[in-house]
Amino acid sequence: MKSIDLNCDMGESFGAWKMGDDATIMPLITSANVAAGFHAGDPTTIRETVRLAVENRVAVGAHPSLPDLAGFGRRVMKVTAREIYDLVLYQGGAVAAFAHGAGSALHHVKPHGALYNMAAKDEALADAIAAAVKDLGDGVLLYGLAGSAMIEAAGRHGVRAVSEVFADRSYQADGTLTPRGSPGAMITDERAAVDQVLSMIERGTVRSLEGVDVSVAAGTLCLHGDQPGAVAFARALRATFADRGIVVEAPA
Amino acid sequence: MKSIDLNCDMGESFGAWKMGDDATIMPLITSANVAAGFHAGDPTTIRETVRLAVENRVAVGAHPSLPDLAGFGRRVMKVTAREIYDLVLYQGGAVAAFAHGAGSALHHVKPHGALYNMAAKDEALADAIAAAVKDLGDGVLLYGLAGSAMIEAAGRHGVRAVSEVFADRSYQADGTLTPRGSPGAMITDERAAVDQVLSMIERGTVRSLEGVDVSVAAGTLCLHGDQPGAVAFARALRATFADRGIVVEAPA
Amino acid sequence: MKSIDLNCDMGESFGAWKMGDDATIMPLITSANVAAGFHAGDPTTIRETVRLAVENRVAVGAHPSLPDLAGFGRRVMKVTAREIYDLVLYQGGAVAAFAHGAGSALHHVKPHGALYNMAAKDEALADAIAAAVKDLGDGVLLYGLAGSAMIEAAGRHGVRAVSEVFADRSYQADGTLTPRGSPGAMITDERAAVDQVLSMIERGTVRSLEGVDVSVAAGTLCLHGDQPGAVAFARALRATFADRGIVVEAPA
Amino acid sequence: MKSIDLNCDMGESFGAWKMGDDATIMPLITSANVAAGFHAGDPTTIRETVRLAVENRVAVGAHPSLPDLAGFGRRVMKVTAREIYDLVLYQGGAVAAFAHGAGSALHHVKPHGALYNMAAKDEALADAIAAAVKDLGDGVLLYGLAGSAMIEAAGRHGVRAVSEVFADRSYQADGTLTPRGSPGAMITDERAAVDQVLSMIERGTVRSLEGVDVSVAAGTLCLHGDQPGAVAFARALRATFADRGIVVEAPA
Repeated sequence: MKSIDLNCDMGESFGAWKMGDDATIMPLITSANVAAGFHAGDPTTIRETVRLAVENRVAVGAHPSLPDLAGFGRRVMKVTAREIYDLVLYQGGAVAAFAHGAGSALHHVKPHGALYNMAAKDEALADAIAAAVKDLGDGVLLYGLAGSAMIEAAGRHGVRAVSEVFADRSYQADGTLTPRGSPGAMITDERAAVDQVLSMIERGTVRSLEGVDVSVAAGTLCLHGDQPGAVAFARALRATFADRGIVVEAPA
Repeated sequence: MKSIDLNCDMGESFGAWKMGDDATIMPLITSANVAAGFHAGDPTTIRETVRLAVENRVAVGAHPSLPDLAGFGRRVMKVTAREIYDLVLYQGGAVAAFAHGAGSALHHVKPHGALYNMAAKDEALADAIAAAVKDLGDGVLLYGLAGSAMIEAAGRHGVRAVSEVFADRSYQADGTLTPRGSPGAMITDERAAVDQVLSMIERGTVRSLEGVDVSVAAGTLCLHGDQPGAVAFARALRATFADRGIVVEAPA
Repeated sequence: MKSIDLNCDMGESFGAWKMGDDATIMPLITSANVAAGFHAGDPTTIRETVRLAVENRVAVGAHPSLPDLAGFGRRVMKVTAREIYDLVLYQGGAVAAFAHGAGSALHHVKPHGALYNMAAKDEALADAIAAAVKDLGDGVLLYGLAGSAMIEAAGRHGVRAVSEVFADRSYQADGTLTPRGSPGAMITDERAAVDQVLSMIERGTVRSLEGVDVSVAAGTLCLHGDQPGAVAFARALRATFADRGIVVEAPA
Repeated sequence: MKSIDLNCDMGESFGAWKMGDDATIMPLITSANVAAGFHAGDPTTIRETVRLAVENRVAVGAHPSLPDLAGFGRRVMKVTAREIYDLVLYQGGAVAAFAHGAGSALHHVKPHGALYNMAAKDEALADAIAAAVKDLGDGVLLYGLAGSAMIEAAGRHGVRAVSEVFADRSYQADGTLTPRGSPGAMITDERAAVDQVLSMIERGTVRSLEGVDVSVAAGTLCLHGDQPGAVAFARALRATFADRGIVVEAPA
């Protein structure tokens, strides 16, 4: 039986500022990446987000970031691998405490924004993240870009990796994502997006922009909760998955 | 056999700024209150401080604060009890992850600065802190001012409290500390300070400023690592304790 | 000829988080209180807000706050008067630079949130604010609650004060605002709100909750841009003012 | 008559954390680069530093940084040129207000740390900084690395640039500094350092590591106040300058 996890960034409010429609998205996903305070997510928001996840039987993950509240963690910063370990352990531990306080446990870590992109390519940063996930406890998973340095680093550290794929991004012949801004980078047609996902789940391949089929491991699919149509798309996906007998669940 | 714990605030550096002489103090204490990022203590400093504690077989505690880096957590802020729970759980979880990463575990929580003083008197805040300590895991201790609202709150939440006493502060007839700035508030004579500590440990009483003996529970003694003479005083204390057969150890 | 200034808090976004509908409100007001970075308003937001104000010929004011991004400057903090001077001068200077960069100049300072409320009653804080406004340059005005300690402090420091009144808050017999949460504190009927404003402008009095007419100086009226109906209310006010021959303009 | 300015980074404390020995260094320099809050320097520290500068007749400059308190502004961040303009104007305006409050005026801006290094090579960032300095007021100077993109950008924006040189860093044949960490990058011999400075001031050339004399404009010399021997070196420099008839003064 084929299965897939649906993950989404959650808890991206901060203090008086609200972002996202977590209450609507949460019932549609199986894994929540909870902002951990460095790009979004004050402690009160973390508690409320984790509780919402637990109420919806959604797996609680930490979404650690570079320390950049004003830039929402999207700006590349030259941070050492050692510091990255520290940042991930700090933020992961904080979210883990809320998961425990809500009667659950930390399920996974997915790096946020610039950190995610940097660690996809930089082996030292990827190692630092994997080491931190290891130290967050046995069984905590690392969500990283399919085929990236993060997946390999997890293997070196005895951490189980979950390969993340995208419905709305096209792939290149080498299996990497077409960079944003390049022609054809975004898949805006809903039917094409669903088809790409089905291909990745059912056949383990994706048709690249160049027209070649490329192998890709699909452990978790990233939904973008802040985009218009996100809820409709999630529902369409789930209906299709139900039709095809694909189980939607967080990796155990 | 009588025993006492010696605790000290540790890890109060931040980024490029250094504070305290942790390497010298650490071997002399049995419990470290590790700054958790909100008044001091960036993630890298936390890691280094926790590792230093573990190397010295010192119990690792979290030292959560109000969110006030510029004020070092010393300024009273009107924060709700619910937010205090969130702040303590967040910071406690972060330090716990470093303790786990260093092969240890979170031993205790001691609120810092203004939060400590506020929670000593405010039952709702004390309850919020105790609830957070409870959610940080079974067996985590709450260090609070002897006789204060924090000790009572711990009892209500099934958390074990450790009563903190001071060598360099005088007590009043009602068992509270003489407010700083009042005449006689500080005990500057080392012999008098040692004698006060011995009385609290051996007889469970302290001679108040008014000359009355008052009952006081002495579970842990607070050392001030940033004061001149701190190291010499700690050594004098330990020599006296050795002479009197008082065991110096963290509460199990 | 009677006149009144309409002021509104502006620029309360921060980084990726948006708040308020400044583009819609700005054409309706005559004074903008621009968030200065300590409760909201990163430098980019400040620039954009100041430019929007200047384009609409709206006077540019600074809206300094206690340093509390997570609490949006609404939480009371025990800060010394000396520190308040420093905080206000820092934030006021920053906004002044953007005003200058946009071809304008800093017109006024209005303390934000908890700082506003604290300084309305605390003479030392009010003096610190007035001294900072003085040092921001000749002619910079201080907006403060009508009848409060801020108005008096301005007088002591040779700063011109502008007395702020509210349309949607009821007054008590001693001229102070009915505290939020007390019965009758909020005026929700638009007609009653407009009438209160007219009375304050035309007769210099307000009918208190107790039914007594109280003197009140009305130099500027605070609009709440983030409330539903704010735009409609501002338009209704301006229509009424036009009918009654009341000039709407920032104090020169 | 030859002249040189001696500048030094000042006010790098933050809250409870102290850094540097400003009171000792200040009488020895002619320009102070005052940390402006983003890498160091809370508002109270800024006020005290500016006052100390004014008391010593030292020109008050702003030392703006990338927003990175934990990294002391030393970490490269990918920030847009537009944001850099905003950051420099914000911080420069804040320091200018304190200069004005102390009876002086903002004299110059010197970018800090990673921002300084980035803008030395990146034309767009250099332009953004020069534009912000321009908007800080007529006559405000821009201190930048001699021969760098910042000096050129100042010219394009009608801002007067002051070329900064170093006593303790060696130069390469193309006039750039030998990168830290490369062999021969640091000049540790005091006599060699003084000679290098004299050559730059008196002849307008520096002997590069490769042995070639390179032209260099020497408008201001950077002293590192936080290094051991800084005070002794500054005194030695001033004695030598006195002997050679070189005037030590801030650029007018």
